[in-house]
Amino acid sequence: MSDIKEITEALIKFRNERDWEQFHNPKDLALALNIEAGELLENYLWKSHDKANIEEVKEELADVLAYAFLLAEKYGFDIKEILLEKIKKNGKKYPVDKAKGTAKKYTEL
Amino acid sequence: MSDIKEITEALIKFRNERDWEQFHNPKDLALALNIEAGELLENYLWKSHDKANIEEVKEELADVLAYAFLLAEKYGFDIKEILLEKIKKNGKKYPVDKAKGTAKKYTEL
Amino acid sequence: MSDIKEITEALIKFRNERDWEQFHNPKDLALALNIEAGELLENYLWKSHDKANIEEVKEELADVLAYAFLLAEKYGFDIKEILLEKIKKNGKKYPVDKAKGTAKKYTEL
Amino acid sequence: MSDIKEITEALIKFRNERDWEQFHNPKDLALALNIEAGELLENYLWKSHDKANIEEVKEELADVLAYAFLLAEKYGFDIKEILLEKIKKNGKKYPVDKAKGTAKKYTEL
Repeated sequence: MSDIKEITEALIKFRNERDWEQFHNPKDLALALNIEAGELLENYLWKSHDKANIEEVKEELADVLAYAFLLAEKYGFDIKEILLEKIKKNGKKYPVDKAKGTAKKYTEL
Repeated sequence: MSDIKEITEALIKFRNERDWEQFHNPKDLALALNIEAGELLENYLWKSHDKANIEEVKEELADVLAYAFLLAEKYGFDIKEILLEKIKKNGKKYPVDKAKGTAKKYTEL
Repeated sequence: MSDIKEITEALIKFRNERDWEQFHNPKDLALALNIEAGELLENYLWKSHDKANIEEVKEELADVLAYAFLLAEKYGFDIKEILLEKIKKNGKKYPVDKAKGTAKKYTEL
Repeated sequence: MSDIKEITEALIKFRNERDWEQFHNPKDLALALNIEAGELLENYLWKSHDKANIEEVKEELADVLAYAFLLAEKYGFDIKEILLEKIKKNGKKYPVDKAKGTAKKYTEL
């Protein structure tokens, strides 16, 4: 079984044991993901990037990923597929010869 | 090779071809993840969860996942491991007998 | 003295008494605002809009406003002026005859 | 009329002319605020705080403030009152003698 499938099954088992599917509509999953993303960000507030507490980053990042995986599962998205497709698409928005070494948005290249 | 490793390698290859590692410190990766989480959320604004544009959700979710994978890679986190650990930890915060069928936060159970 | 000036002065006094200006650069203020916006959002997670705890909404909204006022002060923006200008600008993006009764984004009108 | 009342009335007038009150429930207003906070944050991505485009910061901050004011109005909160109350409350969480010169969270003081 793939890693992603194994993680997703563990998340779904956890959710179903608690009868939480009733709350997990896509809109609220997207809210939950945003809330966790904010908690992740809090680890970097008022400090430089190397001063974050790595254990807390790990936990908050796991929360973000959990909701991202649950949202993907809700729509039946294949995570590997949608990521590889997005990378391909971004390759057109950010061609190497224009994007190399610059952090500009594609609209400004 | 695992799915997660394959995705991560594709993301790193994309980043390195553009010489973007210089911008990808953990703090800015966490910012990027938050910005993409906001764009994902926009698909649900002013509407019920079943009215979102699924193609756009797919793209924004892929962006969120991309930054989450890059941040994990930056710290050397094993995504499967940190997720399975978090699920275990959440199992203690949300024991089935108390958490079943309720959306309350663990601090209120 | 205007309400906004009075609030801003109270925020600056609070900050200066604690010698916090050194941390309050615009980037971190924008991070702080995002983190508080996430905490505000948490009050609506897994529930309909009328089930939020109003006292907690009040506190989180105050936090969001505090960082928004501090960021405006940092740049010397006049809050009334920038809001009235934005309303005027949005009036062109969303003309009444096209936008009335629809939640569509201006790019789709 | 106070500045805050004048801004709020302009926002409500704009909303009502477009018949948008039907969309503006507190949950979606909190979503909108988060989305705009993310757009504000984007101005600081991959760069130091002094490299942001000030005109764009101004516009995104105005959007954040607009939704914050609309949410306050929805609950009948007096913005000056809730901010002055929050500052008082934070004064107890962050007493000057403990908080001076440190960016630690109150839970760590």
